Amino acid sequence: LPETGNKRIVIIGAGFGGLKLARELTRQHDYQVVLIDKHNYHQFQPLLYQVATAGIEASAISFPIRKAFQKQNNIHVRIATVQSVDTLNKRLWSNIGVINFDYLVIATGAVTNFFGMEHVKYFSMPMKTVTEAMELRNKILENYEKAIATEDKNELVALMTLVIVGGGPTGVELAGAIAEMKNFVLPKDYPELDFKLMRIVLIESNDRLIKTMSNSASKKALQYLRKLGVEIVCSTRVTDYDGHIVETNKGEKILSNTLIWTSGVQGCVPDGMESYLSGASNRILVDEYNRVIGLKDVFVIGDAAHMTEKNFPYGHPQVAQVAIQQAKNLAGNFKRDFYGYTWKPFHYKNLGSMATVGRNLAVVDLPFIRFQGFIAWLFWMFIHLFAIVGVKNRLMIFINWFWNYFTYDQSLRIIFKSKS
Amino acid sequence: LPETGNKRIVIIGAGFGGLKLARELTRQHDYQVVLIDKHNYHQFQPLLYQVATAGIEASAISFPIRKAFQKQNNIHVRIATVQSVDTLNKRLWSNIGVINFDYLVIATGAVTNFFGMEHVKYFSMPMKTVTEAMELRNKILENYEKAIATEDKNELVALMTLVIVGGGPTGVELAGAIAEMKNFVLPKDYPELDFKLMRIVLIESNDRLIKTMSNSASKKALQYLRKLGVEIVCSTRVTDYDGHIVETNKGEKILSNTLIWTSGVQGCVPDGMESYLSGASNRILVDEYNRVIGLKDVFVIGDAAHMTEKNFPYGHPQVAQVAIQQAKNLAGNFKRDFYGYTWKPFHYKNLGSMATVGRNLAVVDLPFIRFQGFIAWLFWMFIHLFAIVGVKNRLMIFINWFWNYFTYDQSLRIIFKSKS
Repeated sequence: LPETGNKRIVIIGAGFGGLKLARELTRQHDYQVVLIDKHNYHQFQPLLYQVATAGIEASAISFPIRKAFQKQNNIHVRIATVQSVDTLNKRLWSNIGVINFDYLVIATGAVTNFFGMEHVKYFSMPMKTVTEAMELRNKILENYEKAIATEDKNELVALMTLVIVGGGPTGVELAGAIAEMKNFVLPKDYPELDFKLMRIVLIESNDRLIKTMSNSASKKALQYLRKLGVEIVCSTRVTDYDGHIVETNKGEKILSNTLIWTSGVQGCVPDGMESYLSGASNRILVDEYNRVIGLKDVFVIGDAAHMTEKNFPYGHPQVAQVAIQQAKNLAGNFKRDFYGYTWKPFHYKNLGSMATVGRNLAVVDLPFIRFQGFIAWLFWMFIHLFAIVGVKNRLMIFINWFWNYFTYDQSLRIIFKSKS
Repeated sequence: LPETGNKRIVIIGAGFGGLKLARELTRQHDYQVVLIDKHNYHQFQPLLYQVATAGIEASAISFPIRKAFQKQNNIHVRIATVQSVDTLNKRLWSNIGVINFDYLVIATGAVTNFFGMEHVKYFSMPMKTVTEAMELRNKILENYEKAIATEDKNELVALMTLVIVGGGPTGVELAGAIAEMKNFVLPKDYPELDFKLMRIVLIESNDRLIKTMSNSASKKALQYLRKLGVEIVCSTRVTDYDGHIVETNKGEKILSNTLIWTSGVQGCVPDGMESYLSGASNRILVDEYNRVIGLKDVFVIGDAAHMTEKNFPYGHPQVAQVAIQQAKNLAGNFKRDFYGYTWKPFHYKNLGSMATVGRNLAVVDLPFIRFQGFIAWLFWMFIHLFAIVGVKNRLMIFINWFWNYFTYDQSLRIIFKSKS
């Protein structure tokens, strides 16, 4: 990396937070920015479930990071894996060598939390990345190919049953999309199978779905999903899974070849930062400026940061909006720092939350209004199209949605394996 | 598989030939058709080079096989790997069990031929399947990520140099597309690299490019590619490659991290058919009805078949048109057989051939006219859009082409790995 005389800000992670921060910082030329990610693309995670259910292409929600900065020359993008951080000497180790920094921003987000259940971790499928979503799509399709070839009744049932753990937005959206596949697509593709045998079970440990949303949203989501044929089990936790039988704390055993785990996340924190963890879900304790408590030049934004605010005594929700708002605030503070102004503390502004259920319904909670149904679904579509990076991605997703909506046909039912 | 009373035709392979045959046969209900493929999708191979160069999505040239037969009930699709064929007892072994047949049609196509060069096979990249094209895309992009991080001058040159072996349509089209990436996309993505160092070398063993086409097409292709900056070496064969240095029979050594092998194919033939090979490029000798010589109920169509005709004493060219025309003829003959009519021998009707070079030029040889340039490119686009399976694929590819043409920007520069 060249020395430019400017102070160097190294950002780890090009998710919602890291990408936003880099974009804000490259508008002015006060700093040299280095953006590190292990992938060469930014992932739009809210639509992962549509990749997993063959509705949109993986590439439509993946945006090449370099493309975002083609017109900037004070940024250096590096595709690399960070191995550890040395906060004392202000440098980090990566698979492409040592990188020094003046300021470090950790925007590494969160990974799936299996709560220490090793069997579940080994046998279940998470869905936090584009590649995991593609693997899930492969698995679902392969199940039915295998089901056609089997003569064992138990195996047939296990192959045709999907259990989703976690009744948050991801679990609800995924369950709805799979139910639509069951209702409209799969019986046409596999006329030899009896789809009355197919079960979609959604298991949630809380007493209602999408606990982060209003009661009315929860109720409607439940109602919509039941109508689509999803079995919903609340107040229940999965305790074990051996690849064939899902066990719950209520003593229930469900025969299923596919357990999809969307039940929780924990901060993804590089080595060398262990002593700054808050204890809760592996997040790093930061002050109101996103500065790591106990360090001067190291910051954490987004899912990996644990900041308490008056309304958020246990930290902010791990959602895109928090990461984006923290990135904006921190970028502003770096600019203030350059000109010698006082830093501004972060305050989260809740813009609302929403989830889609099936092909044309959704639930929406905004700060001043709540609504559900078809209008909510249109609103959800509009917001998501607007939020995605890249004009072409937007166009492609819109065409896919339009197509799927009128043909009742998710057409990307392709099993791509890395080895042909 | 259910017994229906109808005679069972088992087709191995859902490429151009196998898919066409299955479609023709399922129009009537005289036979029970079983279509076996190891993938659940049909691949449109003529556009693989655009997947490899990030121009179109892998899914746009992959069509789910089951979708093609949703309205048919006399066909059974099985995603399986055929292990061996037992022609005597009329059955085959696969990873999903034994399948009996009354008639067997082998439509397994061709695989890359490395002509026995084990090093080349191990270190080079073929491009015969969608997954291979995706791996090639990953490799090309990763090269530049590595180039940015290296300080070794030789390694830098090797990472920035691509050698393509085989000056047939595939090699020419790929070289042109990579040259366009070099000219329009890569320097914007990697402003830190000096693209004067980047070399694209196309090596052909014959004395001219695209030997299957006319002299004027060859000359124009050469001229277009040179203008785009591709180095072309004719009458030269690659003799060895260790992953870093390409050696030729002229004693030349080229430093390159990427050798792309499009130089030849050989028939892909299931075990149990060895004694029916013709000797030339691993193809099975068939009579004018595509019936394996020496067998009564086993047929081969497409790239794996070796049939001689008056104008084709060494067999037909291994192109899609031959496979499609043979499939049509064989389907007609099965129908004739059912009604007791005499079989019709196959005659290949050459509809012409073409290749595109770069972003808006092509060479076209039709039976009565030859033309090159921009009009040829429009013609090429039209024919390929028309030939691809699926209305939505067509639409998606059209939008991609339109987009790339006006933005000079192949936007799918994403490195997807199976493990995130």
